[in-house]
Amino acid sequence: MTAKFIVIEGLEGAGKSTAIAVCQAYLQHKQVEFINVREPGGTPVAEALRHIVKQAHEEQITGETELLIMYAARSQLVANVIKPAIDKGTWVLGDRHDLSSQAYQGGGRGIEQSKLSFLADMVLKGLKPDLTIYLDIDPAVGLARAKGRGELDRIEQEALGFFERTRERYLALAEHDPSIQTVDANKAMPEVHAAITTVLDTFFESLK
Amino acid sequence: MTAKFIVIEGLEGAGKSTAIAVCQAYLQHKQVEFINVREPGGTPVAEALRHIVKQAHEEQITGETELLIMYAARSQLVANVIKPAIDKGTWVLGDRHDLSSQAYQGGGRGIEQSKLSFLADMVLKGLKPDLTIYLDIDPAVGLARAKGRGELDRIEQEALGFFERTRERYLALAEHDPSIQTVDANKAMPEVHAAITTVLDTFFESLK
Repeated sequence: MTAKFIVIEGLEGAGKSTAIAVCQAYLQHKQVEFINVREPGGTPVAEALRHIVKQAHEEQITGETELLIMYAARSQLVANVIKPAIDKGTWVLGDRHDLSSQAYQGGGRGIEQSKLSFLADMVLKGLKPDLTIYLDIDPAVGLARAKGRGELDRIEQEALGFFERTRERYLALAEHDPSIQTVDANKAMPEVHAAITTVLDTFFESLK
Repeated sequence: MTAKFIVIEGLEGAGKSTAIAVCQAYLQHKQVEFINVREPGGTPVAEALRHIVKQAHEEQITGETELLIMYAARSQLVANVIKPAIDKGTWVLGDRHDLSSQAYQGGGRGIEQSKLSFLADMVLKGLKPDLTIYLDIDPAVGLARAKGRGELDRIEQEALGFFERTRERYLALAEHDPSIQTVDANKAMPEVHAAITTVLDTFFESLK
C-alpha cells in the first residue's frame, strides 16, 4: 500500500490535539509507519516563519503577508518533509495543511480564490491529503476552550466574525470534497473519538 | 511635485551603499524630504523575514520558499512604509526593490515569469519606482569585492553562474524599461559617482 497523507483540521479549541492522539493510536494499532507534522511549521525554517506569523507585532501584518508566509512555510514542509516521507513509504499525519489557508486566509480574511489557487498550485505541485478530518465546532465554544488554555496568539485574537467566516469556508469546502470528512466536535469527547475512529475505519476499508 | 520612489539595484559588490550615499547627498541638496528603505526588510516583520532568508540553514531553502519570503517582506514594506510615505509626500530611496526578485529569483534561480508577475501584482498593487539606477558589474569583480567585506550570506554563497544569470536578467529588463538607468559600475569610483549624478540630473530635469 502506498503511504498516505492524513490531516486534522479545525478552528482553535476544536480538539485537534486529542484528535491527533486518537489518529496516532489508530495508526500504531494498524502498524503503519508514520511521522507527525504541524502547520505552519514542521521544519526549522518553517518554524521560524510560524513564530513570525503567530506572534503579536506592533506592526500590522497584512492579509497578503500572512498568506505568503503561510505558503513559504508550507513550501519548505512539503518539499523537505512531506514529499520525501511519502516517497519512501512513510505515512504523514498533519496538524493542519492547505485547507487551513483556504479557510482562514480565504474565508476569514476574504482573500480572493485566484490568489489561494495560484499559491497552492505553486507550492503543493499536486500533493493532496488522502483524508482530511475536519473537526467542526461552534466558534464561540472553540474560542472559549482556547482561551481556557492560556494566552491567545495573533490570529486567535481575531474577532468572532473572523472565525465564523473561517468555519463557513471549511464547511463549504468539505461539502464538495469527499476526501474531507466532517466530525461534529461540539459533542462530548467520547462521541467525537468514536466518530473519528469510524472515519478512519471507513478510510482503511476503502484502501483494501 | 508628487513624491518619487527611487531605487538602487545591482549585484553584490556593485557599490550600492556608496551609490545610496551619493543619492542621499543629491536629494538633500535638492531639499527633498525622503526616507531610506532596504529590501528584503525595512519593517520589523520584514527584517525578521530578511534574517531567515539571508541566514545559512542546514535545511535547504527551496526557490519557491525564497521567492515567497521575499514577497512577504515586500508586502509589509510596501503597505506599511513605502505607500504611506509617498501618500504624505515623502520621497523613498530604496536599497533594492522588485527588480531584485525579477533578477535573482527569476534570472538566477530560473523561476517562471508567471509566478513573479502574479506575486508582483498581488503585493505591489501598481507601485513602480519612478527611477531605478542599476549598477552593472562583472559578477566575478563584484563577488571579489563582497568577499573582501567579510562573511558571505546564504545567497552570496551561490556559484558564479547564478550571478551571471542574475546580471543577464537585470540587463534584459533594463533594456526594455526607460525607468531603469544602467550605470557601468566596473569603472573607477569618481566616474561611477559622476554617472549617477548625471542620471539624477536628467531625472530631475524630466520632472520640471
